[in-house]
Parts: sequence; C-alpha cells; structure tokens
Amino acid sequence: MVLAERKLIARIRHMAETGRSTALLRGIGNDCAIISPPRGSELLVTTDLCIEDVHFRRRWHPARSIGHRCLVRGLSDIAAMAGEPLACFLSLGLPAKLPQAWVDEFMRGLLRLATKFKVPLAGGDTSTADKIVADILVLGYTPAGAAVLRSGARPGDRIYVTGELGGSAAVLKQLYAGKKVTAARSSRHFYPLPRLQAARWLREKKIPSAMIDLSDGVSVDLGHICEESKVSAAIYEANIPMSRGADLQLALHGGEDYELLFTAPALAKLPPKIAGAPITLIGEIHSARSGGGLIHIFGESGQRRVLRPAGWQHFRQI
Amino acid sequence: MVLAERKLIARIRHMAETGRSTALLRGIGNDCAIISPPRGSELLVTTDLCIEDVHFRRRWHPARSIGHRCLVRGLSDIAAMAGEPLACFLSLGLPAKLPQAWVDEFMRGLLRLATKFKVPLAGGDTSTADKIVADILVLGYTPAGAAVLRSGARPGDRIYVTGELGGSAAVLKQLYAGKKVTAARSSRHFYPLPRLQAARWLREKKIPSAMIDLSDGVSVDLGHICEESKVSAAIYEANIPMSRGADLQLALHGGEDYELLFTAPALAKLPPKIAGAPITLIGEIHSARSGGGLIHIFGESGQRRVLRPAGWQHFRQI
Repeated sequence: MVLAERKLIARIRHMAETGRSTALLRGIGNDCAIISPPRGSELLVTTDLCIEDVHFRRRWHPARSIGHRCLVRGLSDIAAMAGEPLACFLSLGLPAKLPQAWVDEFMRGLLRLATKFKVPLAGGDTSTADKIVADILVLGYTPAGAAVLRSGARPGDRIYVTGELGGSAAVLKQLYAGKKVTAARSSRHFYPLPRLQAARWLREKKIPSAMIDLSDGVSVDLGHICEESKVSAAIYEANIPMSRGADLQLALHGGEDYELLFTAPALAKLPPKIAGAPITLIGEIHSARSGGGLIHIFGESGQRRVLRPAGWQHFRQI
Repeated sequence: MVLAERKLIARIRHMAETGRSTALLRGIGNDCAIISPPRGSELLVTTDLCIEDVHFRRRWHPARSIGHRCLVRGLSDIAAMAGEPLACFLSLGLPAKLPQAWVDEFMRGLLRLATKFKVPLAGGDTSTADKIVADILVLGYTPAGAAVLRSGARPGDRIYVTGELGGSAAVLKQLYAGKKVTAARSSRHFYPLPRLQAARWLREKKIPSAMIDLSDGVSVDLGHICEESKVSAAIYEANIPMSRGADLQLALHGGEDYELLFTAPALAKLPPKIAGAPITLIGEIHSARSGGGLIHIFGESGQRRVLRPAGWQHFRQI
C-alpha cells in the first residue's frame, strides 16, 4: 500500500464518520465491517459498477453527480426488492494524477445521498487504475419473507410505474448532441433519487406481486419480470408517463430513471400518489406465449406490435 | 444492457448454480440477492478490487489463477476476523475483445475456490471496461461478539504468524526478473489458500486478542494492529518463518501470503500447528511510545532498528 492510498483511506474514513447507525458495529478500520442486522430480517445485497466513459464522462458529469449516481444505483436496487438500506461499501480505483479535489467532490456527492437515506459508508477498497472505477455495494434488509421478487407476476396482474420516464435519457441525448446541460440539483439525470419510501409503502400494504427498478429502461426491465415470472406483458402507449423533454422511445428504452415498475393483482387499490410519487397503470400481465415477444405494446389507435428489449446502452455502445 | 452482457450474465449464472447454501435464499436473477444469516450472528463484509496491471498481469498469471486470487483476498479478510464465509459477489468489468475462453477460465478459478469453501456466488454486476477489473465482495459471519478485531492487542501479548512468509513475493520477484514461472496448483503465489480453518480454531478457543491477514506484508499489517490497538511491537529477525526462495526483506515486506498474524496473551498455549498451519512466535506487543516507529525489529546479534512500513506495492508502483 502506497502512502497516497493510506492518506486516501484516512481521508475517506474521516469523511465517512458522520454516517453512523446502530446496525453498524464496526466500519472502516478492520479487514471486514461488522453489521448486526435487525432480528428476524433477511439480508439484501447488491453491487453496481460505475466505470469512466461507460457509465459517466468526466467532461459531462460533475464529480459530485458521479458520486451521487454511483450510490443511487445500489439504493434503487434495494428499493426494487422493497427493502431498507443498512450500509454501503465503496471500491474505488483512481488514476494517480486525478486531483484530490475531484475525489473530495465525488465523495461529497456520494456521502450526501448516503446521509439523506441514513446509510453509513462502512468499508471498501482503493487502488490505482487507468480510468476511474467505482463499485458500490449496498446491504439492506426486509422482514423475513417480505422482499418483492421479479418472479411473482401472474396473468391478470396490472403493471404500474412510479414517476415519469425518459427524463434521464433525454438529458443524455442532449449531452451526446454536444449541448451544455447544467447539472441542477433537481435533475433526474444528474441527481436521481431512489424510490425507497414508495417501496416501503408498497411492501407494508403487501401490494406488489413483482417489482424491479427502471435502471435499463421499460423494454429491458419489464422483460426481466416477464422472463423470471414466465409470463408476457401488454402495455399501452397512451398510458406511458413521459418526462418533460422525453419522447416515447426515450420513455420505453431510456434507462437510469430509477423509477419502480411493479405488478399487482387486478383488485389491488392503488392511490394516485405514493410518498410523493405519481402511480400510473401502464398495462397488464398475460400468460406466456410460445413464439412472439415477451412484451406487446398497443398504439393509440389499437395496433399491436412487439416491444423488443433495446434499453439502456452504456455510452460506448451507443 | 447489450446482448453480450446478457449472455455473459446467463453464462455466469449457469456456472454459479453448482454453489448453493441454505443461507442463500435467492442468488442471481433479482435486483438483490437474499441471504438469511445464522440466528444470533453478526455479519462481516469485505470488498477487494483486482485491476489488470495493478494486481495481476495477463502475461504472468493464467486466467484461472487470477480468478482464484480475486476470491482469496476476500476469504482471507473473513479469516482475519475469525469468521465463516457465507456468500460472494463479483463485479466484473471486461474489455469487449477479451476471449470468452479467458472469462470461462477466470470464472472456473474463482468458482473452484468458492466450491472448496462452500461459498456460493450470489450476485454481482458486469460492464465493459478498457482493462479487466474485478471487485469481489465476501459476506461472512461470526457468533455475536466473536469477531477478532485489529484493535485488541495489549502490551505483553505475544505476536504469532501462521505458515511461512515471503513465498508469494519471491515468485513475483522472479516474474519481474523476466523468468518464466509455472503456475503450479500448489503455488502460494498463484493459488494461495485462506486460513479459514486455523481462524475458526483460534476463535473457538478464544485465543487471539487481535488478528489481521498478511495481504500487504508484516511491516504494513502489523503496523495496522499497532495503530488500531494504540501499541507498539517488537519482532525478532531470527524467528521470522521464511518460505523457500524468500529472504528476510521479502518475508517482512512481501504481501499476498494470506497467512494470519495474531496476538495472544502471554499465558495462552499455542500448539505447533493449527489445522495444518505451522504457528510461529515472532515477537511481542509493547505500550505505545511517543516518537520512534511503531515496530522494532531485533537482529540476530540483538541490535535494534525501526521497521518502517514498506509493504506490498502494487505492480506499477514497484
């Protein structure tokens, strides 16, 4: 371990000390963190890689937004299972010449979001790397048996989404077009928020039969539910809630909105909003068909076509 | 998500299905894995980054050894806390042109070690990357309160190590010198094993006051124990157990042996071997001194010098 790495760890440890929780018995400073999960709970674990020029670009994204966006991916995975976050861990590979100010801003963005959701940074690892790489791990929990899976959707279930779709991809499209976009704190692209509160409400009311977060886009993520539940789906173009600046393509295939998509029995009563998030019925689940696509989409005049997965392509693949 | 990534995940999911455990309720296939930890236990969490040309080189290390070495880092961290591993997670960034055969061999190396220690691969993430990056997360547990920390060493405690030191660094030195080294299955450099069994024995006998694994080398890792325990240490040159091919420098500063270093009260009785690992007394703990180094080393003729941390430098820093 080189001196720079020791200093970096000491600095991160100091910054992380603001985040504490009763579940975190030992954080940074041992070979492992020690966590005491709530009695009778089941653990949720998710990891998400963020790699420079794949998941973000330094000239497009402020360091603070990159740190925020790294953590939101993990928190949103916990929301997708209807869980509560317990702690996060960060493995960080950094170019030797990266300015310390960049790292500080990155950590501030990450830790501000962590503090908002009371998730202590409990450990991780550091290394040199040619390009920035950040792997975020979030540990969470639910009461035993209460996690919502992708595999529970049944024919007849309705399909809902929270919030509006395509907003993050619309900003990305502008960035690709060479437009300068200000990274406003309210931006769903630069500072998206995980739908943890809405997920908790849904879990407590035992409403969702299956759930996923929209990180890759409806066409990919609803496809995952169809595959794991062995069902098909029909959605209605006219019902898709679109963000300002988004079009149908971006709303269906754009990723990184971090809204929730869930299914629920036809008789379930859903309010128009949950924890501030608008709830929209977008379609229903059907039995699996041999041949044909997993998802059909109905146009405004009733014509049906297959919606193929063409979701979130990371930057270099676009 | 591109097609190649979907295929890769499907392939890894298939390969990972051989590893199951009662604690793993849901593995790959949801936004999070679901784990039910043993009742009354505390969780251990560790993450370790492995980056191409920092932690390994493709022309030096067979893919199978790289996969093995990734996982051993996490398992060894669990051993250092005297814990039992529960599950592992892998975040994997891969160059688009990397041959599938390389990835398969990497996964075989990782999964063979995972199977040996009954640790299922429960999830992770994938991405494209310019160079190979693998972040391994291992989740483990101990009975509540039984984890061994770095901070428990007290003046008067004796310092012990398992096995022999410097063997991994000796091979690395040969690789740097341009020598061709065969990656034998028995090699402590290419296929090191975590000291999980010895750690369990020590925990059950309540022997260690502090413990760490020798991933960075004695001079760095014993330094961590001194810092966290607020003590100093004296070790004896003549007592350092050296691997064949290693010298004192490599034994004191070479990393990646994945042996355990632990402290125990002077009255504790240690057998010559634990679970097949030779146990060697190498020194003792003293109270902290202001000024002077944290570790003193005594030569064969009794002369004393300060042992400064100069441990494992990753490849590009050597």
